[in-house]
Amino acid sequence: MRGAVIHAPRDVRFETLADPKIVHPTDAIIRTAVTCVCGSDLWPYRGLEPIGDPHPMGHEYVGFVEEVGSEVTGLRPGQFVVGSFATSDNTCANCRNGFPSSCLHREFMSSCQAEYVRIPNAHGTLVATDEVPGEEFWPGLLAVSDVMGTGWWAADAAEVGPGSTALVVGDGAVGLCAVIAAKERGAERIIVMSRHASRQELAREFGATDVVTERGDQGVARIKDLTGGIGADSVLECVGTAEAMRQALHGARPGGSVGFVGVPHEVAVDGQELFFSHVGLRGGPAPVRRYLPDLIERVLAGRIDPGKVFDLTLPLDDVAEGYRAMDERRAIKTLLTP
Amino acid sequence: MRGAVIHAPRDVRFETLADPKIVHPTDAIIRTAVTCVCGSDLWPYRGLEPIGDPHPMGHEYVGFVEEVGSEVTGLRPGQFVVGSFATSDNTCANCRNGFPSSCLHREFMSSCQAEYVRIPNAHGTLVATDEVPGEEFWPGLLAVSDVMGTGWWAADAAEVGPGSTALVVGDGAVGLCAVIAAKERGAERIIVMSRHASRQELAREFGATDVVTERGDQGVARIKDLTGGIGADSVLECVGTAEAMRQALHGARPGGSVGFVGVPHEVAVDGQELFFSHVGLRGGPAPVRRYLPDLIERVLAGRIDPGKVFDLTLPLDDVAEGYRAMDERRAIKTLLTP
Repeated sequence: MRGAVIHAPRDVRFETLADPKIVHPTDAIIRTAVTCVCGSDLWPYRGLEPIGDPHPMGHEYVGFVEEVGSEVTGLRPGQFVVGSFATSDNTCANCRNGFPSSCLHREFMSSCQAEYVRIPNAHGTLVATDEVPGEEFWPGLLAVSDVMGTGWWAADAAEVGPGSTALVVGDGAVGLCAVIAAKERGAERIIVMSRHASRQELAREFGATDVVTERGDQGVARIKDLTGGIGADSVLECVGTAEAMRQALHGARPGGSVGFVGVPHEVAVDGQELFFSHVGLRGGPAPVRRYLPDLIERVLAGRIDPGKVFDLTLPLDDVAEGYRAMDERRAIKTLLTP
Repeated sequence: MRGAVIHAPRDVRFETLADPKIVHPTDAIIRTAVTCVCGSDLWPYRGLEPIGDPHPMGHEYVGFVEEVGSEVTGLRPGQFVVGSFATSDNTCANCRNGFPSSCLHREFMSSCQAEYVRIPNAHGTLVATDEVPGEEFWPGLLAVSDVMGTGWWAADAAEVGPGSTALVVGDGAVGLCAVIAAKERGAERIIVMSRHASRQELAREFGATDVVTERGDQGVARIKDLTGGIGADSVLECVGTAEAMRQALHGARPGGSVGFVGVPHEVAVDGQELFFSHVGLRGGPAPVRRYLPDLIERVLAGRIDPGKVFDLTLPLDDVAEGYRAMDERRAIKTLLTP
């Protein structure tokens, strides 16, 4: 089969790879329906994370079950499945506590920009749809496997509730999906920080009521202006930089909550500052598996359409251009079709 | 009148001070029934916080209303009142959001180890009991004004719920009150970290089921042993040092919650570590006013007796010895009677 391999910063190639095989009896092999490039893939692509030896890329996928291991129950070849970037057995203590992305048998997916993918912990990880959904739903379901699940987690961790004011820091695909999540969870006011016209437009379509273009202290001042001087009830931090975390903590009202879902890079939180803010802080890799049944239903019912974050579609063999377009911010997110 | 004044590290004196007067029409003056020394008073006492010019000390009090300002409603001379170390108007946005200790008109009390005290924002801050309670309830009600309210907040911020496992870091008065709070909120298992026999005994009396004497990595390993290998659902951090915060974060299970209520001193939280732990973190000065009606009722009904944390009672004019006894860990907490 063929798939994406990263060799060095800004050097992603589409190459012939060994076909994945069942390794453990709990594995499944899927044929990729659609896959995509993630904002987090840009960290190594930009040389901001070590790459080491050349290796496959990608952790987002929907596809068709091709083969299952001897211990996989409830899945059969031909089914359309949605998964998560983190695999989970769905039975361990952490899974039962609602944190499948901290599953004791978790494996992070890492070779999904390819024609076929091996899924460990298949029974616990994959959710099959009742029937094969129309292709128009595939981008939305693909988004659910990562960015929409992560946006939902941001809203969950930030405790967005009916009638609340939500602030979304970040206008990438996760930030935009976080707007969808805040809206679905009943936020009355949704403020998004964005300087890009096309992203602002999509954010408004998804339910944002206010856009803040200022950054730093000016951005915080503008947020305070919009929130009666105190800040937002819930802040959804969808970037992962120190500056974004600062915006998030300063944008929350006393006693508000920050959900942070961008992998933090060189972020340290001062204990005394957090203390006197009364702000609650929770983040981590999204427990997507917990949300899958609900989010799949919302997509298939046409209630949400997170697939709109894909503003560039390329054949999988053009994966290198998919990275380039996102790196140069010509695209929010690139959909890849095998 | 007379009251405590700190001059330098380990130099607290009982001196003649000006009688407090109504300064703002929202003030009240109370005659102190009982007051006490707080663990946080030991920071400047030990020279770990700057002292500056000599100044009065103390922020815990119950007493009798002596005089009220012209705008104070609902309070009259002779009533027995319980307050909080932070004053609040009970009407601003932060108060309405449940965070009176972030009240927009907040003042931190700081001269309560004295015969009389001026209470700003008296109407919003003080809760009067229906009748003057028997003296046997005074220590418990005094504890409610700070350490018991703070222990309750630790349990609240750590989301202690029925059937859960709670870990209490710290065996000072706040940690011991946190045990009471965890028990009252239905925790099934309450683990307390303590190396002091008398404190362990009181913790067990308050509801602790397990005592961990190890510290550092060994302490964390012991906590994991006691919690099926994953850690506690809720951690109540009642110290404020970097080591205590480390214990708290490492002692929580993936997706668990840490409530931190000791004022952090040189504590920084690594963003990436917090991220991958899935642990939620919330702290701050306890919103005691929010809990007062409920906690007063629990004390007067004899349901809880946080007054037991006072293991030394001295006349107010012996306040210097009260500090010394706590500094030398001869006493958990000193009650002072004017």
